[in-house]
Amino acid sequence: MKIGICAPSTPFTRDDAARVTALAAESHPDAELRFDDQCFIENGHFAGTDEQRLEAFVRLANDPAFDAIWFVRGGYGACRIAEDAIQQLKAPAKSKTYLGYSDQGNLLAALYKANIGWPVHGPMCADIRRKGGDQAIKRALDWLVKGSSKSLESSVEVGSRYAAFNLMTLAMLVGTPLMPDLKGHVLMVEEVSEYLYAFDRAFFHVGEHLKGVGLAGLRLGRVSDVPDNDRPFGETAEEIAQRWCKRFGISYLGEADIGHDSANKVVPFGAIG
Amino acid sequence: MKIGICAPSTPFTRDDAARVTALAAESHPDAELRFDDQCFIENGHFAGTDEQRLEAFVRLANDPAFDAIWFVRGGYGACRIAEDAIQQLKAPAKSKTYLGYSDQGNLLAALYKANIGWPVHGPMCADIRRKGGDQAIKRALDWLVKGSSKSLESSVEVGSRYAAFNLMTLAMLVGTPLMPDLKGHVLMVEEVSEYLYAFDRAFFHVGEHLKGVGLAGLRLGRVSDVPDNDRPFGETAEEIAQRWCKRFGISYLGEADIGHDSANKVVPFGAIG
Repeated sequence: MKIGICAPSTPFTRDDAARVTALAAESHPDAELRFDDQCFIENGHFAGTDEQRLEAFVRLANDPAFDAIWFVRGGYGACRIAEDAIQQLKAPAKSKTYLGYSDQGNLLAALYKANIGWPVHGPMCADIRRKGGDQAIKRALDWLVKGSSKSLESSVEVGSRYAAFNLMTLAMLVGTPLMPDLKGHVLMVEEVSEYLYAFDRAFFHVGEHLKGVGLAGLRLGRVSDVPDNDRPFGETAEEIAQRWCKRFGISYLGEADIGHDSANKVVPFGAIG
Repeated sequence: MKIGICAPSTPFTRDDAARVTALAAESHPDAELRFDDQCFIENGHFAGTDEQRLEAFVRLANDPAFDAIWFVRGGYGACRIAEDAIQQLKAPAKSKTYLGYSDQGNLLAALYKANIGWPVHGPMCADIRRKGGDQAIKRALDWLVKGSSKSLESSVEVGSRYAAFNLMTLAMLVGTPLMPDLKGHVLMVEEVSEYLYAFDRAFFHVGEHLKGVGLAGLRLGRVSDVPDNDRPFGETAEEIAQRWCKRFGISYLGEADIGHDSANKVVPFGAIG
């Protein structure tokens, strides 16, 4: 199991890469992690120019030596290269798993829309920095190496279809060429570092776009690190989700065990086998 | 000239309303400002429930005694009532000016789409709180009372069509039932309190939605109170706007004299007479 690691958004550090590599060597000796040098390029906000980030992802995805592509980190930037990336993918890209979340939802969405490989929402290398991050790394590797069902979000069942996104990332995806058809899917969303009014606004936008697509339902992951507004919003995040789901005729199915934290579980896009 | 004032988003205070009234009495004695009591209701984040905010706006808009509706303040909330509001507007609503910006872009958009009255992007009562805010209030009243061309954004010309929005507000509008057709329009956008990566992301989203509508061009207003990221983004706001405009085939026309500040000029939607 050879795993190619690249950074479609923001850069990682060699020190943290070494920590992930050491952890994996102990817990998953069958996994060979290959951090592409592009992970460590710094160019303003980004892990290199758009061209550098695009080139690294496409090269790894098209390399038949890799069984999976693991996104090193989110941050912002994948939407700038996702459409071009899809155009450049060839046959070897179609037999890989692609694992990440947050801003990498852009690539997961675009891959899923193009029916290329198996996009999976789950932990990334940068989660090593979190408290309990070792568990997130091991959970990701358990999925990549062994397809362990223990890594899965607990509501995921055989026979149903799923997609999972950071809500703000999804809000910026809807209506763009990157957005897949989610008819019949259970959609899981999570959020981090947004005011509740911005969470509410993003739900308005996503709901308006998805109200007619025939979702099987929606689950709400964790909404964490919410900044304090100058006054209380007046509803919890779950109440917000429930209200919008009701308004848009979307079935609210309860909580999802995903979020910007080390407990973030794995949600494969589409149906599990 | 009787001006009805309501709060489709967040509440105002009676003290600040008194300051606006006193200023207007001196500078524009012909203007009669009527702050609806709804402006002062507090309900969590909002100036009352959705029902209260909707009722006040619809009542004022449908009241033939008012010549104009002035939105007291932005904040967030107008998207939750805009579609219902449009459905309830009657003939008297069609001969009014509607003035505001920021979150009130939701109502300006919906009114413009429905061809109801004359939506205008410009200062609101809450601008009295800004440094130099008296000038913003006077500029707004000069437009409402006298249609003064001195209030206009300086690039606005007879014979062209315009629309102006806060970029994030617009990002949450595109693709929803509130969004008007901007074919042939010069679009002006401004931003406040967003990281440059979020500004870049919103430009991606808005550009993907508007690349095919045939805008006459785009102008960038002020991008203010940008939070410091953990590292520099690598481009200025104008460079971001220019890059996305180039990518999406939208003509970048330069700066616009609008923003979340007391210098914010007036931009009527559509064409000036």
